[in-house]
Amino acid sequence: MKKVRIGIAGYGNLGRGVELAIKQNDDMELVGVFTRRAPETVKLMTEGVTVYNIDSAKDMQDKIDIMIICGGSATDLPKQTPELAEYFNVIDSFDTHAKIPEHFQNVDKVCKENNHIALISAGWDPGMFSLNRLYAESILSNGKTYTFWGKGVSQGHSDAIRRVDGVKKGIQYTCPVEAAMDAVRSGSQPELTTREKHKRVCYVVAEEGADKEKITDTIKNMKNYFDEYDTTVNFISEEGFDAEHNKMPHGGFVMRSGKTGDGENTHQMIEYSLKLESNPEFTASVLIAYARALSRMRSEGSIGCKTVFDIAPAYLSKLSGEELRATML
Amino acid sequence: MKKVRIGIAGYGNLGRGVELAIKQNDDMELVGVFTRRAPETVKLMTEGVTVYNIDSAKDMQDKIDIMIICGGSATDLPKQTPELAEYFNVIDSFDTHAKIPEHFQNVDKVCKENNHIALISAGWDPGMFSLNRLYAESILSNGKTYTFWGKGVSQGHSDAIRRVDGVKKGIQYTCPVEAAMDAVRSGSQPELTTREKHKRVCYVVAEEGADKEKITDTIKNMKNYFDEYDTTVNFISEEGFDAEHNKMPHGGFVMRSGKTGDGENTHQMIEYSLKLESNPEFTASVLIAYARALSRMRSEGSIGCKTVFDIAPAYLSKLSGEELRATML
Repeated sequence: MKKVRIGIAGYGNLGRGVELAIKQNDDMELVGVFTRRAPETVKLMTEGVTVYNIDSAKDMQDKIDIMIICGGSATDLPKQTPELAEYFNVIDSFDTHAKIPEHFQNVDKVCKENNHIALISAGWDPGMFSLNRLYAESILSNGKTYTFWGKGVSQGHSDAIRRVDGVKKGIQYTCPVEAAMDAVRSGSQPELTTREKHKRVCYVVAEEGADKEKITDTIKNMKNYFDEYDTTVNFISEEGFDAEHNKMPHGGFVMRSGKTGDGENTHQMIEYSLKLESNPEFTASVLIAYARALSRMRSEGSIGCKTVFDIAPAYLSKLSGEELRATML
Repeated sequence: MKKVRIGIAGYGNLGRGVELAIKQNDDMELVGVFTRRAPETVKLMTEGVTVYNIDSAKDMQDKIDIMIICGGSATDLPKQTPELAEYFNVIDSFDTHAKIPEHFQNVDKVCKENNHIALISAGWDPGMFSLNRLYAESILSNGKTYTFWGKGVSQGHSDAIRRVDGVKKGIQYTCPVEAAMDAVRSGSQPELTTREKHKRVCYVVAEEGADKEKITDTIKNMKNYFDEYDTTVNFISEEGFDAEHNKMPHGGFVMRSGKTGDGENTHQMIEYSLKLESNPEFTASVLIAYARALSRMRSEGSIGCKTVFDIAPAYLSKLSGEELRATML
């Protein structure tokens, strides 16, 4: 068996997750990690793999089948993915939904000029949640789709809390409102406001002597982040914070409530959910499965930019078509 | 927009479901229904569509893009699908899991000889449940997959009840055991016996003067059907039966509990569930979405037998790639 040779560009939480996911898949091999930091300051978890400066990546073209780009969506990926697509088949987890069409075009152009294949916006949302929206809406054409997120840590909202005066440490959990999910499951197809779908729960360690009432007030009224939600602010000790809030759980629900039959009165409910103890490790596992798919599709001659919508599910599995039909269908 | 011209072979519950699903999709058109019964005895729900004898189907080759075959898996489909694949692109919902490889080969051969495309074993299990097993196992390579069915009517078990002496009417619901599902969700990856996963709940209308204790005993000890399960038999009035048990609900759950990360200690849970008021209407909706996919793939030159594993999700949707990326990713 020829292994898929993987490069990792960017070694934060997601990059480390990809490194760990490669260890779980014996048809994958980590060839190198590429970073903007000084390579000697980066310590990997895999024996015998070298850390390189990102600028030297292009010298490794012949040694890497798929480069998995683990930068951030705000500024890294819009630049890195098209740049690296000149030299490699690439995968990213670009998650700025509104800018996906533009990102797709940029990457597609470079891929086609250089005979490479790319997958953008893989992960769980965009990614597995998108797939479930697509399948459910294609099957139940008369219906309504709902996406709920959580319980999970929002980095953006946690960062916003930490910028408030008097906050030493802070974390924010987005939580779906159970009553709203139950209303959807009932088949009533409710119209739900932002406030009705999710609530925000914050845990804060205050600086000594800080005005807790003022902190609470500032957080709850923060425009674009908290003002449209029911927000709870809990003050806890630093020990408690460090012990209980050091993980990155996330997850959520995609639901479609549809009607079929004579008079369209028959209720049909599709629900997909994820409960993840580690958001980056799960995203990394999705990226690795799609690296397998992309490597096969490229070997069949496919080029250009793809999304999860364009990839036949069988490509994700190590099993052959025969094995899949015999064991999983 | 050129509509996809659909033929329906077999007009039972599933065939009627397909007819109703076509009405919900304006890119689909019902061209004819083909039956083994005397055509004049079959009344459709769609104006202006003709019922034909199944033997005359082959004369309609040029008028039908996809023939959806709605026969039973035991004896109809193993014969009908390869036969009709000589003349048409075909879809079926063949659900005898153990015989799928053989059925696939038979259909694939005929398709390739006649330049047709086929999809076998579409629906929800096999079908959407299979897809979810495949995606989940490809992503979480270290884990355990569980499928639970119900609450739903099992036709085979209901038929078995009705063959018991003294039973006037009977229906059987397969129900997942909540405690078992919760154990799976906890991440403990339990080994579950048949009895621990599902229970069987029967509703029976007894003939006048029948020995109810004997009926209960006979049902509970029926080999292959009930003896390995905890079974409850409820006797109810005929009025109650006719009012409450005249639907064909079904559904179930596909769960994968996986571990990722350093030391593989991070629990990741994927869950997909269906709650269907009508099993045949939902299956029909899946078939229609895949009819759209198949028609596109055939127009791109694809031939041979496929399963849901081989079909890129984008083919199922009426939306273009651009529209999907802008709205659903």
